[in-house]
Amino acid sequence: MAFQSKKLINDPNDVVTEFIEGLVETYPGLQYLDGFPEVKVVLRADVSGAKYDKVAVISGGGSGHEPAHAGFVGEGMLTAAICGDVFASPNVESILSGIRAVTGPKGCLLIVKNYTGDRLNFGLAAEQAKSEGYKIEMVIVDDDCALPPPRGIAGRRGLAGTILVHKVAGAAAASGLSLADVVSEAKHASEMVGTMGVALSVCTLPGQVTSDRLGPGKMELGLGIHGEPGAAVADLQPVDVIVSHVLKQILSPETNYVPITRGNRVVLMINGLGATPAMELMIAAGKAVPRLQLEHGLAVDRVYTGSFMTSLDMAGFSISVMKSDQAILDRLDAPTKAPYWPVGVDGNHPPAKIPVPLPPRLSKSDETLSRPLQLTPQGHILESAIEAAASAVVNLRDYLNELDSKVGDGDCGSTMYRGAMAILEDMKKYYPLNDPAETVNEMGSSVKRVMGGTSGIIYSILCKAAFAELKAKRQTRSSAVHWVDALEAGIAAVSKYGGASAGYRTLLDALIPAASTLKERLNGGDNSIGAFIASADAAVAGAESTKDMQAQAGRSTYIPADILASVPDPGAMAAAAWYRAAILAIVEKV
Amino acid sequence: MAFQSKKLINDPNDVVTEFIEGLVETYPGLQYLDGFPEVKVVLRADVSGAKYDKVAVISGGGSGHEPAHAGFVGEGMLTAAICGDVFASPNVESILSGIRAVTGPKGCLLIVKNYTGDRLNFGLAAEQAKSEGYKIEMVIVDDDCALPPPRGIAGRRGLAGTILVHKVAGAAAASGLSLADVVSEAKHASEMVGTMGVALSVCTLPGQVTSDRLGPGKMELGLGIHGEPGAAVADLQPVDVIVSHVLKQILSPETNYVPITRGNRVVLMINGLGATPAMELMIAAGKAVPRLQLEHGLAVDRVYTGSFMTSLDMAGFSISVMKSDQAILDRLDAPTKAPYWPVGVDGNHPPAKIPVPLPPRLSKSDETLSRPLQLTPQGHILESAIEAAASAVVNLRDYLNELDSKVGDGDCGSTMYRGAMAILEDMKKYYPLNDPAETVNEMGSSVKRVMGGTSGIIYSILCKAAFAELKAKRQTRSSAVHWVDALEAGIAAVSKYGGASAGYRTLLDALIPAASTLKERLNGGDNSIGAFIASADAAVAGAESTKDMQAQAGRSTYIPADILASVPDPGAMAAAAWYRAAILAIVEKV
Repeated sequence: MAFQSKKLINDPNDVVTEFIEGLVETYPGLQYLDGFPEVKVVLRADVSGAKYDKVAVISGGGSGHEPAHAGFVGEGMLTAAICGDVFASPNVESILSGIRAVTGPKGCLLIVKNYTGDRLNFGLAAEQAKSEGYKIEMVIVDDDCALPPPRGIAGRRGLAGTILVHKVAGAAAASGLSLADVVSEAKHASEMVGTMGVALSVCTLPGQVTSDRLGPGKMELGLGIHGEPGAAVADLQPVDVIVSHVLKQILSPETNYVPITRGNRVVLMINGLGATPAMELMIAAGKAVPRLQLEHGLAVDRVYTGSFMTSLDMAGFSISVMKSDQAILDRLDAPTKAPYWPVGVDGNHPPAKIPVPLPPRLSKSDETLSRPLQLTPQGHILESAIEAAASAVVNLRDYLNELDSKVGDGDCGSTMYRGAMAILEDMKKYYPLNDPAETVNEMGSSVKRVMGGTSGIIYSILCKAAFAELKAKRQTRSSAVHWVDALEAGIAAVSKYGGASAGYRTLLDALIPAASTLKERLNGGDNSIGAFIASADAAVAGAESTKDMQAQAGRSTYIPADILASVPDPGAMAAAAWYRAAILAIVEKV
Repeated sequence: MAFQSKKLINDPNDVVTEFIEGLVETYPGLQYLDGFPEVKVVLRADVSGAKYDKVAVISGGGSGHEPAHAGFVGEGMLTAAICGDVFASPNVESILSGIRAVTGPKGCLLIVKNYTGDRLNFGLAAEQAKSEGYKIEMVIVDDDCALPPPRGIAGRRGLAGTILVHKVAGAAAASGLSLADVVSEAKHASEMVGTMGVALSVCTLPGQVTSDRLGPGKMELGLGIHGEPGAAVADLQPVDVIVSHVLKQILSPETNYVPITRGNRVVLMINGLGATPAMELMIAAGKAVPRLQLEHGLAVDRVYTGSFMTSLDMAGFSISVMKSDQAILDRLDAPTKAPYWPVGVDGNHPPAKIPVPLPPRLSKSDETLSRPLQLTPQGHILESAIEAAASAVVNLRDYLNELDSKVGDGDCGSTMYRGAMAILEDMKKYYPLNDPAETVNEMGSSVKRVMGGTSGIIYSILCKAAFAELKAKRQTRSSAVHWVDALEAGIAAVSKYGGASAGYRTLLDALIPAASTLKERLNGGDNSIGAFIASADAAVAGAESTKDMQAQAGRSTYIPADILASVPDPGAMAAAAWYRAAILAIVEKV
């Protein structure tokens, strides 16, 4: 497979300069030198070379590793970053420009990843700057642990561990140390860190053709950050296995690349290579910590998880392990304004998990959830109303399914039937019928348990909101007004959470006219019975009127308008049916 | 194309719980509720429900949008995040658990993206929590601008603009406001923001098969964050064109989704969808800002660039534009401990670029760079030595190429020839031969200009380092000891930056014995002439001895040892030749 790589860029030759422009638009603490395209240098906006009273810390190298290196420029970390073209060392003049722009009397430390091109270009710039009178030192980072020694003149590559060296050096410089002391800390840090990577895909340079040298089901271990082949290709394994393997390589006593032994303290960096989602990086972090603790006998002081030193759009990550001590931790924890240094990583860990809290107090239903031995008169009425309402829904199963088969997925009747049957059964077992609020609450639980889907949760919301209203204004006897308030609270909640209003061809088109008619009649001085009956009629008329409505939700939106015009909404018809049955049962009893 | 997706995960069913474990390992300010796998709730470690004296701000929804929502939990932003399975709304019990865990007497705001499942599940949990005595409010965010109105009951989707609403609400809550006031600010913020996305690839759910519904050269505009198809598929365009199109859609006066008009102030969010490198996001940010300013007449107060609300491993980004005012800016700028809220974004922008600095002072070579009218005796000697050295290299061109063709790429002689010829020409034109330091400096510039590649920069470093040493100890007359120091400084720099030592089969195998012999003889009291000649012999012997060395660098590392054994290193032979010729010329003159 080979195809033109898809990237969200403009001219492939401009990716680095346009990256820098966007970076500086995003972060007002950063500036760049006006020397595009040859000079691509990002620097702290608050540092002016000759007057800078701290040691300047500069890094850089080829681009394609974003946010490295420019994203780590900021007080407490890098003073400037020198950007080459993608995967190409910056030229000597641009490095010199960066040195001149930020170096004051205390001098400048260059932190360079171990690649021949970077060493030589930064080296020549360093020698030139020295001849101009600057104090310059260089620390080379070679944290790669993928290949065994000897590594010859090229040595081990510089990888994501470099970011940790940046931080240590930047914090040391910010604390006011001399160049010699900053160098000493940076060098020490570079000797304490080891890194190894794994990739699922190869990166593609801007404007070039994508080559999937790995293919499906394969991964590459021990690769660098420039798309160069890794030490081994293997079948893709669960990340737990990969993490275990990589940690063993980094900490191998044979290569002895990092001086870490059982009982030591370490910091861990999980570094995404460009196209790896945060989810996968965090999964790796979560597996690496217990492995370090249990298999390697190490205490993990800090975990840095993110995409710090990438390889364009490569999918994969590297793991870095650095031996830590209090001095290194102080540098890593020191504040910095570098935008991409992770925040919130320091501090001691509380227990990772805490118990799921119980409800704040046992609700009444938990205490007394049983059918009363003796029903009050109101309890009898409530029982009759529920029985009538549920039975009405049970009897309508086939009719509602038929309606729904014309405008939906054909299961409205069956779903409502399940809810109604559960209410009938649960009521016999444990509804506290003398307490209307709690009974409504239990009806919500019954339908939530058996109905499922959207209609189940909507009826649960209706019941829960009505319950809360009934409970808030709990009275010794129920009254028609009280029930209207509860119904309106339920309608409001369904409308709020479900998103429907009157006219949306839903159950609300039955319940809204029912509630408003009941309220109007009661407020107008009608007797309860008259008001109840009028409200039942309004519910039915409202449900029937859905024939003339456009569908706004669900499958009905795909049905032609002329078919819809002959079919009322089955959800509204169901609501009208149970409402009417309940009302008639009440009217009969009172 | 359809193939098993490659992901760095373990069991696809565990991705969310393992993400949370890694997140909490990384950030000690976070905890989770011990209710896996049903309850997946991340919360602030420093908040304990009943005693919490601020309004709790909770968000959440399906997972697969990492770092959202859990990565935005922290003081000043979310108090807890409720995580569903991938792209599935969390269940009611888990939402309730989160509410109970962090809600104190001031109550709780639920911020919910506008999806029916989320609205209903959070809605039912809200009603249940209210019935338990909690003060609960909900704000629904529907910032999608991809599709024109009317959007029916489902409405507009909630997208990355939700993160900005989280921040406004979290900062309002942290400032101690009442629930009603926090709701009011969150609602206002949600009405001020519009979002639209573009993708180059479709995301793949863990454990599922990848479907590239787009294919090469295509992009999708106006998509959501769950892999659902977008509003349109189009040929991939330069990102500048894409940004322009997306901004016009968001700010369209026809849809009128956000109340933003010319002269307003806005904040901008460029949000990566999971597999988009920082480089591409920054390029988009850099293009969006001038478009907003120049085409839409808006002032851009803040730019947030990063991956905040992703869609698993989707390549692409969304753009959000929010109308800003001082109140909103204050909330966005307020400090937060949420680990993924970007830092360093606030503050006024200085000029984006500053001039490339000039060298700190004009060097002597710039002032007086010309061949002296009259050479001093030392100038004559220097001229002779350079002429002899360069001529020796010129004469060896074919021999060196022949050696190099056996152990390298065959151009050593030609490269050295170019450098030697440039030195001969430049010396006639402008070398300040009465000043040995500056002359050596100019030799470095000559070879750097014409030689190219590694050998060019290595000889430049040799000259620059020798120059710095000569200049630092500038004397009225040159002395043998002074030249030894300069040679040693050059050797040290080449070794440091190039990575080679004695025995690595490089030019150092000629120069190191030359310098050490010269120094020993001079320190031992020999006369200069004897010491010079011995040193020339040592250089030649050292170069010859490279026949017996293993290659450590370059192409020679691929050559079998028995072939190498008959061929000395051409670079070392060249160095021995010019060194010996220079020495003999000096000896002849003094």
